[in-house]
Amino acid sequence: MKSKAAVAFGPNEPLKIVEIDVEEPKTNEVLVKMLYTSVCHTDAFTLSGEDPEGIFPAVLGHEGGGVVVSVGEGVTSVQPGDHVIPLYTAECGKCKFCLSGKTNLCSAVRETQGKGLMPDGTTRFSYQGEPIYHYMGTSTFSEYTVVNEISLVKIDKKAPLDKVCLFGCGVTTGLGAVKNTAKVEENAVAAVFGLGAIGLAVIQGLEKAKAKRIIAIDVDPSKRELAEKMGATDFINPKEQSQPIQEVIVEMTDGGVDYSFECIGNVDVMRSALEACHKGWGESIIIGVAGAGKEINTRPFQLVTGRVWRGSAFGGVKGRTELPGMVDAYMAGDIDLESFITHQLDFTDINKAFDLLHKGESIRTILTYGA
Amino acid sequence: MKSKAAVAFGPNEPLKIVEIDVEEPKTNEVLVKMLYTSVCHTDAFTLSGEDPEGIFPAVLGHEGGGVVVSVGEGVTSVQPGDHVIPLYTAECGKCKFCLSGKTNLCSAVRETQGKGLMPDGTTRFSYQGEPIYHYMGTSTFSEYTVVNEISLVKIDKKAPLDKVCLFGCGVTTGLGAVKNTAKVEENAVAAVFGLGAIGLAVIQGLEKAKAKRIIAIDVDPSKRELAEKMGATDFINPKEQSQPIQEVIVEMTDGGVDYSFECIGNVDVMRSALEACHKGWGESIIIGVAGAGKEINTRPFQLVTGRVWRGSAFGGVKGRTELPGMVDAYMAGDIDLESFITHQLDFTDINKAFDLLHKGESIRTILTYGA
Repeated sequence: MKSKAAVAFGPNEPLKIVEIDVEEPKTNEVLVKMLYTSVCHTDAFTLSGEDPEGIFPAVLGHEGGGVVVSVGEGVTSVQPGDHVIPLYTAECGKCKFCLSGKTNLCSAVRETQGKGLMPDGTTRFSYQGEPIYHYMGTSTFSEYTVVNEISLVKIDKKAPLDKVCLFGCGVTTGLGAVKNTAKVEENAVAAVFGLGAIGLAVIQGLEKAKAKRIIAIDVDPSKRELAEKMGATDFINPKEQSQPIQEVIVEMTDGGVDYSFECIGNVDVMRSALEACHKGWGESIIIGVAGAGKEINTRPFQLVTGRVWRGSAFGGVKGRTELPGMVDAYMAGDIDLESFITHQLDFTDINKAFDLLHKGESIRTILTYGA
Repeated sequence: MKSKAAVAFGPNEPLKIVEIDVEEPKTNEVLVKMLYTSVCHTDAFTLSGEDPEGIFPAVLGHEGGGVVVSVGEGVTSVQPGDHVIPLYTAECGKCKFCLSGKTNLCSAVRETQGKGLMPDGTTRFSYQGEPIYHYMGTSTFSEYTVVNEISLVKIDKKAPLDKVCLFGCGVTTGLGAVKNTAKVEENAVAAVFGLGAIGLAVIQGLEKAKAKRIIAIDVDPSKRELAEKMGATDFINPKEQSQPIQEVIVEMTDGGVDYSFECIGNVDVMRSALEACHKGWGESIIIGVAGAGKEINTRPFQLVTGRVWRGSAFGGVKGRTELPGMVDAYMAGDIDLESFITHQLDFTDINKAFDLLHKGESIRTILTYGA
């Protein structure tokens, strides 16, 4: 089958819109027609060549929504016509990780996924007879994509896919980091470093958790408005401070925050976020993805005196179990997705969506295939 | 009042047994006659000059047991004749920290304690008219010492002070780190790095928590026997391994341990301990105290994929609330203290106790004042 796709042929090159060949889904695989996709910093990170797992040529993209076209042998949980969101964090329900009750990091397809392959070790994409790699088990930058059954969640058909596709990554990550990873309680004081989609979703999650103070931090003053709309009570621009940001926060909170979230991927900010925490109980959650080889560091005294350093991947959310409920919460008006969508473009303008992201002008651009 | 004391006159000098002057206790202070004290690595650390808070001349010592001689104004919780253990982690019950329900790090006397002073900013010790500093709010290396009421816990008079004095630091720290900080559950798999008193107490705590596998790690093979007696199921000497110790542990545990404990104070070992943890849920607890300026580091990916980095001070134990129960547990045969006591000496042989500790020949030496 032929499919329109934006292919990353090499690091740091613009994506090329070409017509690729997509094979039929094999056992436990599903062919999905994507209707919408957005662009996330992780796509940009891999495209930049900094991602040690990045391979080219590949179909990137991991935040999207679509409709099931056909299913391979053994697939039972979805059928043609179902509305689905691809999941870069699969959920098999059977592996040591899924059964632990302690993590969402399913290991079932982890190894081949990291190599850009389907579990049988091959790809379903090709261009001019040469294989094209998959990406994060999702590859939403192809109108037709093949995904493992366990990497798909079926959602309510009434939900608008051009909005709920955002649950495929950033929004879920931010909301989940607050609820599942930090388990923020009422009246907590929190700081959020970096106000992209994830940071803003963290703020929204904190407001839902009834945090009493939500300090939003970004070097870009234009982020203030949206942060406050989401629920931030304070905004700090570190560039306008003469002291290190952690000292500013410790002073303004009489000892530090109960929870901090790093939503950038900068190891120096990760240190600041930890050290902005209150002695005795403050917890810092790393969400951002740092560049290859980068390391975090601090004095161990920071931990011995009661601070806790954690991380969160996909917000600790088990996609197949939890996403349908999040979609329902959106439909009930309990989650705001509209505020994240700053731009809408045709899929073929995907490189413009990357530009908008790099310039910090967009939070999320929704790309439409159908047009 | 005159008192026999071992004074640290300067960094890296042997302690000098001299007769110092001890003032009467002031408001909220208590004069204690120490009967027994032991020597801990923290005393040795401060004596070495590496401790950034170390000041000289000082009366060191923070693990001891004694009897109340007299009390200052306002003291209500102890009276002359009571058996007490001094607490370097005070418990006022009133500060933000005590009231948080989240930490044992009482702040009431923290500031002056760190400066070697009583809360009024002066010392109760002097030698030839010159002030001698306090240490950790306890100074158990003086036969008569003055301690804040909130830095003392009254215990059962029937308990042998020459044993239960060990609850003043190492044993409580190790048992508490397992129970209060890590909250280890039945059937957990754990690794313990460093088999001094704290590491051995961690092993004992893990056995009490019914951990199914307890991996003890030390470069000194002579520690094996005591570790196994305490409950270790495996012993590894990193010097006998060709791979980094974290890789050895990840392999032998099919992915890593549920909990690891660093009981040395070595920042490289802290990293190994974290990276020996299982992806998705492994938690590493730093107990050891690192030298001034030392920093821990790792790739943030370790945390993003679900490992948690914590620390523990005095095992998260609130001394006045929890120590009486621990003394009772010892009396009931539920805690083994005897195995920690490898040597017994007269107080005046205190420098020999330091030597034994440095050489790794002793776990704990009990020093007796009375003799």
